[in-house]
Amino acid sequence: MNERLDRQMDFLDAVEALKVVERRNRTVDRARRENSAEHSWHVALMALVLAEHAEPGIDRLRVVAMLLVHDLVEIHAGDTWLYDDAAVADQAEREADAAARLFARLPDDQAAHFLALWREFDARETPEARFAAAIDALQPLANHVLSGDPDESPRPARSQVLARKEAIAAFPNLWERAVALVEVSVAHGLYEER
Amino acid sequence: MNERLDRQMDFLDAVEALKVVERRNRTVDRARRENSAEHSWHVALMALVLAEHAEPGIDRLRVVAMLLVHDLVEIHAGDTWLYDDAAVADQAEREADAAARLFARLPDDQAAHFLALWREFDARETPEARFAAAIDALQPLANHVLSGDPDESPRPARSQVLARKEAIAAFPNLWERAVALVEVSVAHGLYEER
Repeated sequence: MNERLDRQMDFLDAVEALKVVERRNRTVDRARRENSAEHSWHVALMALVLAEHAEPGIDRLRVVAMLLVHDLVEIHAGDTWLYDDAAVADQAEREADAAARLFARLPDDQAAHFLALWREFDARETPEARFAAAIDALQPLANHVLSGDPDESPRPARSQVLARKEAIAAFPNLWERAVALVEVSVAHGLYEER
Repeated sequence: MNERLDRQMDFLDAVEALKVVERRNRTVDRARRENSAEHSWHVALMALVLAEHAEPGIDRLRVVAMLLVHDLVEIHAGDTWLYDDAAVADQAEREADAAARLFARLPDDQAAHFLALWREFDARETPEARFAAAIDALQPLANHVLSGDPDESPRPARSQVLARKEAIAAFPNLWERAVALVEVSVAHGLYEER
């Protein structure tokens, strides 16, 4: 048992690093960029609050667990800005390597469990993974309305944002909200109109 | 449905403020203090990883949900340092008011659900709440070993730390680890020896 706990605590120490992985979006006081740990908290809570908009009968624990681990790969692979096409190109390979490396710190059965959970999120094939992906895509749109800076460049174009947010489209209520948030951001000058 | 979603999204916007509530502990690069949102992410993940050390058969979703909302009251009430006796004295009243105010943003049924969840955590009477409280107490001990600053004052005393961490004692494996972490911190000069 103690060797198990050693490995669990070692993993939990290692994930401290997610708190210093910066994302593009900012905190609501605009004092700093958001990090991937607090983003992960926000989407996990969001999934609980918005669960009624998902497919009926989904396993909410699996959705939340996926969202708690979905960005851990950034500890080794870094955050990839959704609109940075060059970085998006090799993102999958970088992140798969990072996942294997990080979860290997855990006891073997848990390493396999969490790696499978991360891969499930990444593949977006189950109802749980599709809902988690939609929530992960929605949170930055809402955050951006509150904390976006129109002087920041490059600004993505409205059409590019909508194309990259298609994970939300499977959930009509959430997609309607996402489109409305994008329009507010365009009106605020945060995205280009094209 | 749309009025429900309006209220849900309003709540999810309001909780952005948890990312700017500072705690006493620091991030692992020591560049800034940890905030309550990333702490909440860390303890939620910790609860999943350490679940085998809890009472058998606990509802893991309820534990994680409690940990995701447990600090939201700090948006209105602020973070209370565990070793600040004056602030601890009126903490319960400040936090109960804050919980009622924040969760009231949600649709009524969800406001009642999340308020009950927060109260369950606060009361520490169910197996889920006791485990959540132990995890919430353990995370700062591990973080402090990695990021504590021996020049910071006031430094709590070893006996004070152990007394305030008694929520962990119901879980023998975790308590053994907690005591070991406290001893490392004492050796590093982070706590007074008395």
